[in-house]
Amino acid sequence: MTFKERAKELVAKMTLQEKLSQMRYDAPAIPRLGIPGYNWWNECLHGVARSGSATVFPQAIAMAASFDSELMERIGDAVSTEGRAKFNEYRKFGDTGIYQGINFFAPNINIFRDPRWGRGHETYGEDPCLTGRMAAGFVRGLQGKGKYRKADATLKHFAVHSGPENLRHGFDVNPSERDLRETYLWAFRYCIKHCEPSCVMGAYNRVYGEPCCGSPFLLEKTLREEFGFDGYVVSDCGAVCDFNENHGVTANAAESAALAVNSGCDLNCGSAYQWLKTSVALGLLSEEKVTRAVERLFEARIRLGMFDSDCEYDSIPYDVIECPEHLALSRKAAADSVVLLKNDGILPLDPKCRIAVIGPNADDRSVLTANYAGTPSEYVTVLEGIREAAGRRVYSSKGCHSFLMPGQYDENITRDAIITAAGADVVVMVMGLNPSMEGEQGDARNSGLDGDRADIELPQSQKYLFEEIMKLGKPVVFVNISGSAVALGEQDKRCAAVVQCFYPGAQGGRALADVLFGKVSPSGRLPVTFYASSADLPPFEDYSMENRTYRYFTGTPVYPFGHGLTYSEIREEWLDAERVVLENVGKTDTAYSVLRFENRPERRLVGFRKVFLKAGEKLTVDVPDDTAE
Amino acid sequence: MTFKERAKELVAKMTLQEKLSQMRYDAPAIPRLGIPGYNWWNECLHGVARSGSATVFPQAIAMAASFDSELMERIGDAVSTEGRAKFNEYRKFGDTGIYQGINFFAPNINIFRDPRWGRGHETYGEDPCLTGRMAAGFVRGLQGKGKYRKADATLKHFAVHSGPENLRHGFDVNPSERDLRETYLWAFRYCIKHCEPSCVMGAYNRVYGEPCCGSPFLLEKTLREEFGFDGYVVSDCGAVCDFNENHGVTANAAESAALAVNSGCDLNCGSAYQWLKTSVALGLLSEEKVTRAVERLFEARIRLGMFDSDCEYDSIPYDVIECPEHLALSRKAAADSVVLLKNDGILPLDPKCRIAVIGPNADDRSVLTANYAGTPSEYVTVLEGIREAAGRRVYSSKGCHSFLMPGQYDENITRDAIITAAGADVVVMVMGLNPSMEGEQGDARNSGLDGDRADIELPQSQKYLFEEIMKLGKPVVFVNISGSAVALGEQDKRCAAVVQCFYPGAQGGRALADVLFGKVSPSGRLPVTFYASSADLPPFEDYSMENRTYRYFTGTPVYPFGHGLTYSEIREEWLDAERVVLENVGKTDTAYSVLRFENRPERRLVGFRKVFLKAGEKLTVDVPDDTAE
Repeated sequence: MTFKERAKELVAKMTLQEKLSQMRYDAPAIPRLGIPGYNWWNECLHGVARSGSATVFPQAIAMAASFDSELMERIGDAVSTEGRAKFNEYRKFGDTGIYQGINFFAPNINIFRDPRWGRGHETYGEDPCLTGRMAAGFVRGLQGKGKYRKADATLKHFAVHSGPENLRHGFDVNPSERDLRETYLWAFRYCIKHCEPSCVMGAYNRVYGEPCCGSPFLLEKTLREEFGFDGYVVSDCGAVCDFNENHGVTANAAESAALAVNSGCDLNCGSAYQWLKTSVALGLLSEEKVTRAVERLFEARIRLGMFDSDCEYDSIPYDVIECPEHLALSRKAAADSVVLLKNDGILPLDPKCRIAVIGPNADDRSVLTANYAGTPSEYVTVLEGIREAAGRRVYSSKGCHSFLMPGQYDENITRDAIITAAGADVVVMVMGLNPSMEGEQGDARNSGLDGDRADIELPQSQKYLFEEIMKLGKPVVFVNISGSAVALGEQDKRCAAVVQCFYPGAQGGRALADVLFGKVSPSGRLPVTFYASSADLPPFEDYSMENRTYRYFTGTPVYPFGHGLTYSEIREEWLDAERVVLENVGKTDTAYSVLRFENRPERRLVGFRKVFLKAGEKLTVDVPDDTAE
Repeated sequence: MTFKERAKELVAKMTLQEKLSQMRYDAPAIPRLGIPGYNWWNECLHGVARSGSATVFPQAIAMAASFDSELMERIGDAVSTEGRAKFNEYRKFGDTGIYQGINFFAPNINIFRDPRWGRGHETYGEDPCLTGRMAAGFVRGLQGKGKYRKADATLKHFAVHSGPENLRHGFDVNPSERDLRETYLWAFRYCIKHCEPSCVMGAYNRVYGEPCCGSPFLLEKTLREEFGFDGYVVSDCGAVCDFNENHGVTANAAESAALAVNSGCDLNCGSAYQWLKTSVALGLLSEEKVTRAVERLFEARIRLGMFDSDCEYDSIPYDVIECPEHLALSRKAAADSVVLLKNDGILPLDPKCRIAVIGPNADDRSVLTANYAGTPSEYVTVLEGIREAAGRRVYSSKGCHSFLMPGQYDENITRDAIITAAGADVVVMVMGLNPSMEGEQGDARNSGLDGDRADIELPQSQKYLFEEIMKLGKPVVFVNISGSAVALGEQDKRCAAVVQCFYPGAQGGRALADVLFGKVSPSGRLPVTFYASSADLPPFEDYSMENRTYRYFTGTPVYPFGHGLTYSEIREEWLDAERVVLENVGKTDTAYSVLRFENRPERRLVGFRKVFLKAGEKLTVDVPDDTAE
């Protein structure tokens, strides 16, 4: 019997009430049928999250900067290995709580259309092709290739979701047909075609007036009929209650729940589906639709091996969690995600030079893990990584608060930074944002915007410190740590080197030091455009792609999408549209992502591939068109 | 000319307005007299604070647990060396801002009369003799023995100050004559007699109805006439405005300022003294009193070498800050402050055993530095210290939030801790408090109490985790990190070892590992009583010493004041009241603090001395009576 047939058979034994109970994320046990309880809410955006110890890989936006979909697959595999280890052991205790299951609400494949969006760092950036390819790699690794599914991945948030955070529960988006297809839905379609994601999560917002988790247009017509999605759909958490509470498209929770299930939202994260019995009683929902949903959910659970004793993942032991191999992979991923934006030759650093490490992000642990993360057993901050690599005394000073200008009685620490920098040969300034300045509604505490940013400038406190340090006339390596684009025009003009480090995971400091000291040649590329100023951006609430992202932006960015230097020099000689000869004509071995752009009619990425080239090495590489049907 | 004579001469050249300006903490320059601006507000409770990089020594309560007044002197000396380095360099830039001067508002020698007081960890504990001796050591080190004073120390808060934090600006205390003399004032008197502190800071509260910074009884009669204090008095910050705003003893700020100066409060931290001109105009204050205050302040500044070119401290260079010697001293101080409360022989740990490190304080940086701290360039958490010392993989798990029970959607991390612990031979649980749970008004965010604690129990979240871990039946080493007494009755009964680690400074994890693995034998002793429960305590607002601290407590504590084991066994044979023969009859070299108690009529500490004894070594030690006149 197929998983689908087994599910049909099992669900057929359930009463209506039992079926309805299984559509909640915290599904209770049905002992008479041998069905244990199961909590569907679990997270693994960049490592198993919120469930204690786990390898914390670089944040999604950082992984995207690696432009390496094979690396993504390895990471996805490591993540589900740790997830399985936890699931196996938790089950022995009879645990069926939140963050203990083996399906995950990741990846987030929304398009990072505006740098001010607080959740943008959860995504793979602004480009649909990059997003689709990176997500597909992650999903493949996560879900495995076994008889059973290793873990379930969830594409989220379907669809068009990208801020503002403080309006998300009631916002309506009316994108043009072209923007919808070529930007907002592209990666969903790509993944469904290429990597069989188990699940899709509906978004909070409305599209064309329909709330995403209750949208026949999105869930039935587009996702299932057009894209051929065959899995289950889950609501974002609380999104169904939004129908009546914030969107005002239904009168009460029973209507909301019915609308969701009728539209094809099988599973409810939140509490609306406790009203499903009422929905059925009122004739708003048929048992047939209920059965369809529950069959999908049990197909998934059976496919995950939960009801069999021969699942190949049941013996994964707990000590794979944060094992040396996974930590090394996290470090490699972080190093491969570092984007060298500018280098006058100062990098890699001379190990004999006296280094001063300055800035509020230098020794901050929160910029390593970002959001949706587990608890690493070891944090290596940038300062710690540099100190470890330098093998000698490294001088450091925080210099300023991340965003607050000092009050009358607050600590007085700028001068210490200036003095510290003045004694060095090279100043490494580690500035940028942190997850308290950009995040999800309720997470970030930035300027009343509920996680979003008001602009893309460096905060005033950091600008002040930057100017004070620049007055010293020392060569400055500017490391910007952030999850989104920051206006780095001044840094580009005035610093000897500029390095973009997206939130790099728990091993991040070590990885950045690998790059700064030349153990690893940088090979990351920007997954987002680095604009010159907030004035370049359309209004944040405007979902038109006009003048947004490298594909439609008509201005001049400081650093374009795809920009990224290495410590070597790679020559590209394209033989035809698909084949390119790469030659490392520099003196340093390096990884290199070759990008294939085409004009359709705007210039857009249609393929990419990452390879490693020793100094002097020449390689012919195929770069297939990922947009080919 | 003496410093006093030079001050008299200089002040004589000032106009009344100029004099008044010098009584503010942010004293402006008087260019026509060659007097630069000076900001009197600086902090160094356990290292130079709030001024950027600095060696962060163990918090005051931890240093007290070392029972080593000579160590205190070395620490004070290191702190003023770093303070001088900063002052020297800041001056080159013409800086005269807050936290840049060379007088410090430390030490805090209030008596830790109730474990619920949030600021208790800033003190040297509950015993006057211990407090006086430790403070005197620190002041001696800080102030130096040179021609000029190396730094000015400030005894604070004079007097009787010890919570509640949320009532401090309007609270009136009426202690008995005996409590006032033998408890609240004893250490002030001792220090003034033995170590010439430059400054005394008045407290926020009232005593016998008089606000401390405007109290003729405290400042004139007691401090100057009776104790012979010859330095300057500064108000706590904002305390003078409290006279009219909160205490209601004056009608307006001009009256408050006049009352303060007339009572002998020479310097104002806060803004009340901007009204001094009005006070004089209204006839509330004579120029004579003003002159007296300003002369005291300039005597201090001249004595600090600010107006001379031959000050022996002017050449201290910036790189003494966090130099290897100071870091090593901080680590030593932290190790010598660890208090071994119970040990069934499991400690020191067998380096071959598999260790699981569990608990919310294991990898928390905030418990290292506590409050009034600088910014260390290196934090070594307990987990990091143990990992470094073990030299092999150490398993760890946070297990719970410091004080919040998990909400419905919060991370779910208890099981991870249980599984992690189950795989180990020994579980090291690192629990307790952190500076967000006990602190100063405005600092700590604990339960609406403005820094104080509601009780002395471990938080519910930690109790739950503790019970879950204990169910495993593994041997548990319980490490309590806190700045105050916690009810550890259950831990004492059920754990193989119990270790008290007061907030240990930036090198704390390394120091604790030194003790856990036996590189250093523990030699700390409790500077406070560890009561069995909050029910043992009188009401927090009650300032009577009846049934408080080991001297007057009639119940049975879990661990008494002065308790502390070593890894060896020391026999004491007292030859007479003052002389004792100590013999290390164990197999481990160890430091040891011998305590001399006498009944007057209650049993109280009258002397102590710390020595080092090799295994088998015998020493005759003098323990003088510190209470002798």
